[in-house]
Amino acid sequence: MDRLEKQISFLLEVDKLKNVLRRSSVTDGSRRENSAEHSWHLCMFALTLAEYAPEDTDISHVIKMLLVHDLVEVYAGDTYLYDEEGNKTKSKREHDAADKLYSLLPDGQGEDMKQLWYEFERCDTNEALFANALDRLQPILLNYANKGSIWLENNITVKNVEEHAYRLTRLSHPKLKSFVLDLLKNAVENGYLKG
Amino acid sequence: MDRLEKQISFLLEVDKLKNVLRRSSVTDGSRRENSAEHSWHLCMFALTLAEYAPEDTDISHVIKMLLVHDLVEVYAGDTYLYDEEGNKTKSKREHDAADKLYSLLPDGQGEDMKQLWYEFERCDTNEALFANALDRLQPILLNYANKGSIWLENNITVKNVEEHAYRLTRLSHPKLKSFVLDLLKNAVENGYLKG
Repeated sequence: MDRLEKQISFLLEVDKLKNVLRRSSVTDGSRRENSAEHSWHLCMFALTLAEYAPEDTDISHVIKMLLVHDLVEVYAGDTYLYDEEGNKTKSKREHDAADKLYSLLPDGQGEDMKQLWYEFERCDTNEALFANALDRLQPILLNYANKGSIWLENNITVKNVEEHAYRLTRLSHPKLKSFVLDLLKNAVENGYLKG
Repeated sequence: MDRLEKQISFLLEVDKLKNVLRRSSVTDGSRRENSAEHSWHLCMFALTLAEYAPEDTDISHVIKMLLVHDLVEVYAGDTYLYDEEGNKTKSKREHDAADKLYSLLPDGQGEDMKQLWYEFERCDTNEALFANALDRLQPILLNYANKGSIWLENNITVKNVEEHAYRLTRLSHPKLKSFVLDLLKNAVENGYLKG
């Protein structure tokens, strides 16, 4: 295959992300969200909430990272944040998936895209910190919009959410942090989330 | 509402794009594609095929435009490329939708995002030309992957596709152009598309 054919094969392969279902529902509760539309939604978060990123954050780079951050799920599937067993094997499964997926691209390009994902996973740049914070924030908002049905179904407590939202609350702009903490407080008060 | 609350309301409102169905199916043919995951897929096209953009194209700007290019559909719905009646009222419906949607955002920010969409619609910058070309290319690939079932169902001919892919074939990199023309030729030969 020539260069363009490889790139097109890759683009058709990543289409499978549209069939990887996440735990969260879309806001009207009609069905579960898939990882492709979730990735788009997170990019919209980055575009809209850019002003709350750490100083000198390159938002275009955040968006590129969010576009690819779940791509490995086309082979590895989505692992629920609170699935202890699944999270033990997640890293191995996802790294194998990355090797397989990015080898579809021409030399160099696959490696560059894989590096974007590694950066998201290492979470050691301003861009990756902000991308990870948004990846925690979005499902909290969707779960709240659905009156906590997914939290309740999975016996999730406010402590669980706070623990996993640590990156979000610790590293975020004070306004974003207090917004999330207030939202979780309301969720408990309204019975959307166990105290 | 304060600034952040407005931004969060907007982000929850645009979630509705996940329930706007397009005519194309996902590659495995199991269901129709929605406009949110379509937008994500187009951004992946921009990231992967950046080298075929016109010289000096800012790919980050292309990606931002593609993120928002279908947002008006949350109120206006998707209008099929080959729906003559729907296309007569499309512009009015979409402009009304834009006014309503972007007014959810704080002053200035809504206007900036609306400008991104206008730029896509006017199609008069390198970035908008490339974004529009990708918006034509992606459904052609999905339809081909589905053996033309949507083309056949809607009595679409190769002439219809070529006419609407004009921006794509006229303005694209020669490699992308010849790839698409070959694909359409194969589609006709395989009976995926009427000659």
